Amino acid sequence: MARVSQAHLDARRRQILDGAARCFARNGFHATSMQDVLKEVDLSAGAVYRYFSGKEELIEAIVTEVLGTVRDMYERAALESPPPMPDELIVRTLTHMTQGRSAVGEDGEWLFPRLMIQVWAETLRNEQLSATLSEGFGKVRAAWVKVVARYQETGMMRDDVDPDAVVRTLMATAQGLGAQYALFGGFPHEALRAGMRGLLSMREASGDIGNQSVKSE
Amino acid sequence: MARVSQAHLDARRRQILDGAARCFARNGFHATSMQDVLKEVDLSAGAVYRYFSGKEELIEAIVTEVLGTVRDMYERAALESPPPMPDELIVRTLTHMTQGRSAVGEDGEWLFPRLMIQVWAETLRNEQLSATLSEGFGKVRAAWVKVVARYQETGMMRDDVDPDAVVRTLMATAQGLGAQYALFGGFPHEALRAGMRGLLSMREASGDIGNQSVKSE
Repeated sequence: MARVSQAHLDARRRQILDGAARCFARNGFHATSMQDVLKEVDLSAGAVYRYFSGKEELIEAIVTEVLGTVRDMYERAALESPPPMPDELIVRTLTHMTQGRSAVGEDGEWLFPRLMIQVWAETLRNEQLSATLSEGFGKVRAAWVKVVARYQETGMMRDDVDPDAVVRTLMATAQGLGAQYALFGGFPHEALRAGMRGLLSMREASGDIGNQSVKSE
Repeated sequence: MARVSQAHLDARRRQILDGAARCFARNGFHATSMQDVLKEVDLSAGAVYRYFSGKEELIEAIVTEVLGTVRDMYERAALESPPPMPDELIVRTLTHMTQGRSAVGEDGEWLFPRLMIQVWAETLRNEQLSATLSEGFGKVRAAWVKVVARYQETGMMRDDVDPDAVVRTLMATAQGLGAQYALFGGFPHEALRAGMRGLLSMREASGDIGNQSVKSE
């Protein structure tokens, strides 16, 4: 057997993961067979099973990789000075993911949000995947907490609220954006920016601004 | 045949919808049969088919009812003076829905967030359901826009951003909270309140507060 370079092995693995992600995004996890994946990536069973034992391993690898990419982005954002505002950070993450090849269909449609919902549905009845998703989300959350801690250190955000609560709320916003994208087709970045600008401007009806700890009256 | 009161008919319809919602939430739409629904509600086929022709009509009715309830809450909120802050409004909606009987399992677990994800997954491959969901969401969005317009009229929010963009962002937050609830088990209301308090206090690193139109320096 000819020697095969690591680059070749990596590219093959990439090709299989991308094809599987497209299949899962289009038809869901349960309705996708390994046969569908083989056909999608145009490889033999032997070539694919060399890398992955089956659908379970494929979905685990996809989830772990996506959440790892997101976590890395937040780790880097926490090192920036000043740290990027939440809408900027979310838009940047979405842009980065649309530029990745994973779950982009032949017609160029970004299938990732559909994949996200299919993974969630599968997570509800698959304990192993649930554990993987929880662990991955935990790491994203920990990285994002570093960004929020930076907001608080630099005076961009009041420092008497739990950073983890802020992160769960922001994470919910990002997740919901993904769901809207999948369900209703698209969510313009400008809408997120405008929406966040509106929210960040809010004050209680009493006249206190949201940031009550810095009111100067 | 004995005369049957409207109250009885309504209660029976309610019983069927609640049972179907529990089935869909537990096992997903595709893995649930009408036989499962009959067993869950302990009624004969004749009794159930009098109200619903099948699974499709059941899921349509559930989605329409849930989104109608949410829309009504936002319509009412738009009439309050002052209008409730976003975190208050979302917590109130979630509380109202947990108190409703729909999709509450025998053990008291609130199954609604699971149902939401199952509906989303089904929506990706069911055009009729997709149309129903889009229409229902459109109405919720229109009602919620009235609340945001009230924020702007009363000076609680800068008025140079598109209310619809704010609503899509808030709706994303509420949807993401539901997803986190289903996937990771619960989302304390206090975390949402703290998270929103933190976000509403944000200012750009330059020192401008978010609400640039009302800064008094």
